[in-house]
Amino acid sequence: MTNEMLEREADTVDTTTRKTIILFSGDFDKVTAAFIIANGAAAMDDDVTMFFTFWGLNALRRPEKVATSGKSSLQKAFAMMMPRGPGRLRLSQMNFAGAGPKLMQRMMREQKVMSLDDLIASAREQGVKMIACAMSMDIMGLKADELIDGLEFAGVASYLGDADESNVNLFI
Amino acid sequence: MTNEMLEREADTVDTTTRKTIILFSGDFDKVTAAFIIANGAAAMDDDVTMFFTFWGLNALRRPEKVATSGKSSLQKAFAMMMPRGPGRLRLSQMNFAGAGPKLMQRMMREQKVMSLDDLIASAREQGVKMIACAMSMDIMGLKADELIDGLEFAGVASYLGDADESNVNLFI
Amino acid sequence: MTNEMLEREADTVDTTTRKTIILFSGDFDKVTAAFIIANGAAAMDDDVTMFFTFWGLNALRRPEKVATSGKSSLQKAFAMMMPRGPGRLRLSQMNFAGAGPKLMQRMMREQKVMSLDDLIASAREQGVKMIACAMSMDIMGLKADELIDGLEFAGVASYLGDADESNVNLFI
Repeated sequence: MTNEMLEREADTVDTTTRKTIILFSGDFDKVTAAFIIANGAAAMDDDVTMFFTFWGLNALRRPEKVATSGKSSLQKAFAMMMPRGPGRLRLSQMNFAGAGPKLMQRMMREQKVMSLDDLIASAREQGVKMIACAMSMDIMGLKADELIDGLEFAGVASYLGDADESNVNLFI
Repeated sequence: MTNEMLEREADTVDTTTRKTIILFSGDFDKVTAAFIIANGAAAMDDDVTMFFTFWGLNALRRPEKVATSGKSSLQKAFAMMMPRGPGRLRLSQMNFAGAGPKLMQRMMREQKVMSLDDLIASAREQGVKMIACAMSMDIMGLKADELIDGLEFAGVASYLGDADESNVNLFI
Repeated sequence: MTNEMLEREADTVDTTTRKTIILFSGDFDKVTAAFIIANGAAAMDDDVTMFFTFWGLNALRRPEKVATSGKSSLQKAFAMMMPRGPGRLRLSQMNFAGAGPKLMQRMMREQKVMSLDDLIASAREQGVKMIACAMSMDIMGLKADELIDGLEFAGVASYLGDADESNVNLFI
């Protein structure tokens, strides 16, 4: 038995009040679903960790262009083609060349459902921990300056540590 | 410590016999995978809750057109373009303009694997709890009359309550 | 109370050191994410089970053509159109007719991130249990000879048994 395993057993955290969500997808609808779940859990006093990886990082990008240095030309090309922030994400279905997300946002507004921007702001206000996957940022060449404030930066070991203390762990 | 947290601690349910599945996807293959897991768990005497949200609701739609009132024109357009029921869902890969799902269903039949219609019927017979996400129905303008019988209607708080009592929670 | 439920209660396994991943997707980026999580957990001394189903089986295919018998013509056609192994998987986004995965692999190499081939080899060396879904193989007509060595073959009941003993269960 390793030290790590012993430490885990000694651990007395109440796992029933913790949740983690890996947000891999950068699709508008999936990002929205992730934040609805995160906000719902936070409203029930759960500790929620969201771990943003691969395309999920696009939901955290600032809408404006940010000057950066140290990117390879491939990374520059990728960064240019990937959407900057919630307002530019596509729908996983019925995207209609970008009209789909706008239509869905209008339908959400008609039903008094919070917009994705508001859902993200609310998650931050409610103390949802938002971690940007450092390895994905390295691969895609995304810099911390290009992402919104209030994030932590960590790797898969950090995610697994949080997941070990949680009773609901979703991959979206 | 809130009352809710105290209640949770007092809770003595055996979580190892409960499972939840969020079905976000309306792709034929993912819906099929979700129902295979749900039926497998139910056959092992697990309590299974399926929570249908966004495109996953399309798997619950009746195949025939249902007259409804109170939809915005945008909701009408969405409802018209979204598939009505298991027989019209697309494959997430190799859809071939709709031929893919039919080919896959033929391959399933050749191997004596239950069809998606039968998997859904079996899940209901085995007592799988099927919850349609009320907020998604509002956004997309889907009415209860357009969905199959035997559903419950609830929101993310209800899902989280079930997930808290379960040891396997999947997002599909 | 059934015998099965009694057996489960008598069970004293430490669930906090076990993880399962259903790999449904055959997209290069999702397969990569799955293996990064699996390798990370294995490095933390967790027991990890990966359950490959539907398109996820393509990640396990040998790159070369393998002569097989007993396939229906539909199964032959599907097998021919589905990618053979990690080197031929597509990206879920920005696939660019196959250039996307190559670009992403180059970006991974630039950042000294293990290639998908190396991630799979490392998972096997670390003892990650890799189970190919027998029912999916039947449906798609994939034979054991067409897949890499070191796999187990089982069904959803086997997955659920492993998931019951795990504290993190992801569907990717």
